[in-house]
Amino acid sequence: MRTRAAVALEAGKPLEVMEVNLEGPKAGEVLVEIKATGICHTDEFTLSGADPEGLFPAILGHEGAGVVLEVGEGVTSLKPGDHVIPLYTPECRECEYCLSGKTNLCQAIRSTQGQGLMPDGTTRFSMLDGTPILHYMGCSTFANHTVLPEIALAKVREDAPFDKICYIGCGVTTGIGAVINTAKAEIGCRGVVFGLGGIGLNVIQGLRMAGADQIVGVDLNPDKKAMAERFGMTDFVNPAEVEGDLVAHLVELTKGGADYSFDATGNVKVMRDALECAHKGWGESIIIGVAPAGAEISTRPFQLVTGRVWKGTAFGGARGRTDVPKIVDWYMDGKIEIDPMITHTLSLDDINKGFDLMHAGESIRSVVVF
Amino acid sequence: MRTRAAVALEAGKPLEVMEVNLEGPKAGEVLVEIKATGICHTDEFTLSGADPEGLFPAILGHEGAGVVLEVGEGVTSLKPGDHVIPLYTPECRECEYCLSGKTNLCQAIRSTQGQGLMPDGTTRFSMLDGTPILHYMGCSTFANHTVLPEIALAKVREDAPFDKICYIGCGVTTGIGAVINTAKAEIGCRGVVFGLGGIGLNVIQGLRMAGADQIVGVDLNPDKKAMAERFGMTDFVNPAEVEGDLVAHLVELTKGGADYSFDATGNVKVMRDALECAHKGWGESIIIGVAPAGAEISTRPFQLVTGRVWKGTAFGGARGRTDVPKIVDWYMDGKIEIDPMITHTLSLDDINKGFDLMHAGESIRSVVVF
Repeated sequence: MRTRAAVALEAGKPLEVMEVNLEGPKAGEVLVEIKATGICHTDEFTLSGADPEGLFPAILGHEGAGVVLEVGEGVTSLKPGDHVIPLYTPECRECEYCLSGKTNLCQAIRSTQGQGLMPDGTTRFSMLDGTPILHYMGCSTFANHTVLPEIALAKVREDAPFDKICYIGCGVTTGIGAVINTAKAEIGCRGVVFGLGGIGLNVIQGLRMAGADQIVGVDLNPDKKAMAERFGMTDFVNPAEVEGDLVAHLVELTKGGADYSFDATGNVKVMRDALECAHKGWGESIIIGVAPAGAEISTRPFQLVTGRVWKGTAFGGARGRTDVPKIVDWYMDGKIEIDPMITHTLSLDDINKGFDLMHAGESIRSVVVF
Repeated sequence: MRTRAAVALEAGKPLEVMEVNLEGPKAGEVLVEIKATGICHTDEFTLSGADPEGLFPAILGHEGAGVVLEVGEGVTSLKPGDHVIPLYTPECRECEYCLSGKTNLCQAIRSTQGQGLMPDGTTRFSMLDGTPILHYMGCSTFANHTVLPEIALAKVREDAPFDKICYIGCGVTTGIGAVINTAKAEIGCRGVVFGLGGIGLNVIQGLRMAGADQIVGVDLNPDKKAMAERFGMTDFVNPAEVEGDLVAHLVELTKGGADYSFDATGNVKVMRDALECAHKGWGESIIIGVAPAGAEISTRPFQLVTGRVWKGTAFGGARGRTDVPKIVDWYMDGKIEIDPMITHTLSLDDINKGFDLMHAGESIRSVVVF
């Protein structure tokens, strides 16, 4: 079949919207009509050329929602008409990682996914002249239709709006999951969140849902304050306005340090501050942000010997097929909010405007609706 | 009263054994006759002058066992004749830290202890000319008699030999506790231990007691192998004999990485190797060793984002009054071994020989018996 897609032909260039060929699903695969997709910083990271593992030409996008059109041989958990969210972290429920019960990092299709290929080592997309186009993060949601492995699709309720729940495919789950799955924050805790962008706001509402007593947001941009308060932030700290040491200020503000701190900036110096503002004895700091290639975190080991714990999280520690449908329910039940974070809605033809809005800091999330 | 003690008059000089004055216990304090004390690397660290917080003159020693001779006003949990192990990490059971249930780092007397003083801000020791002598780590077990706060003494069974259980006052508890309290290692896990000295050996027997399937020991000294095997090591790795990358070798040897890795070297580069040989998705690395002042650990944040956890431990995460008596029971019940690690027994007059043996790498633990 043919479909329309925004293709990343090479690093550093705008996407090109064009007709492409899409082969049907092979065994274990599913053809999905994408109804909406968010534009995430990770797409931008790859498109910019900063991602050392970026491959081109490719169809980017990994934060989508859509409807199953056709299933390949042997697919049993999905059928045409099902509403789904693509998962860049799949959940096979059979590999050592899935069965460990300790991680969401399913390894079943990791190597082919990293090469921009389906599990059989080939791609379903191609240019009209036959040139293969690579998949991206196993999802490629910047296309009106895409093919994914069955294990990389979460089946969700049919009354949920695609243009909102697509955000659960990455940002919402990453932020809320970091609180619930990775930190396992408990009622009455104090949290500090560095970076009040799309991820940080979801960390904040995760902390609110977990019953935190204090939720401190840290950002250099004071314009972020109002929105963060809407999601539950109780204290705003602008590092540029703190006299003296930021860490000491945060420790004092939280009466001894954060029970849980989160880096949603990707800046390794901020990651250090996040660790060091955690409470002596038990504070845990969780790295969410993606650092530039080669950047390293550091601290004195004394910080850990005196009880702080340094962790990280990918896709919020969520097992996609199991947890994503629950988060969709939370949204539909009003336990979490998404709508205010979807600041811009675009057509596929305008997708590059979404990247422009991101660069200008004007959007929290832009969503492309097909 | 007067007692005999080995006094650290200044950094970098041998201890001087002499008669000193010792005041009796004030309210909340206990006079203890020390029967035996181990000589630990931490004593050496302070005596050498490398410890930026070292204060002189002081009576060092923090790994002792003895008998209560007299209790001060208000002491209710101990009476003369009780056998006790001094605790450099006390357990008040009243401060925010004790009550958190999340840490053993009781803060009740931290600031005075750090200044070499009893909780009332004074010292009980003095030279015969009246010059005050400071306490050390709240213990000062290099004296035949010493005074400690009630909350810094674990009451233990009376049939346990002082010259063995003194080691539970630091090394045994630190190593075993790192496995049981901090890592919470479970049956069937794979552990990697860096540094096969007195702490590393106790980590190894902690892993054996926890039911580990594989216990890898890493040390540059092949002479450590036999003793480590006696305590449960299943695989020995000498980094000098590994071709190529040590971390990759350890990951392969453990079929994917350590579920729990431990640094018992204090070397920050080793701490990084320990983290990076932990299993993707869930491996935890625990820093036990004390690094040189100013030294920093570092790694790529990707190591944490892909599921590794970086932790530290002090006194093995043990709540001294609660956990130390249990460890004494484990020793008396044969669940753990101590005797082979006590390689040398000395008199107080020969205490400096214990430091010489440590420097020469000839001892695991030297114990001074009074």
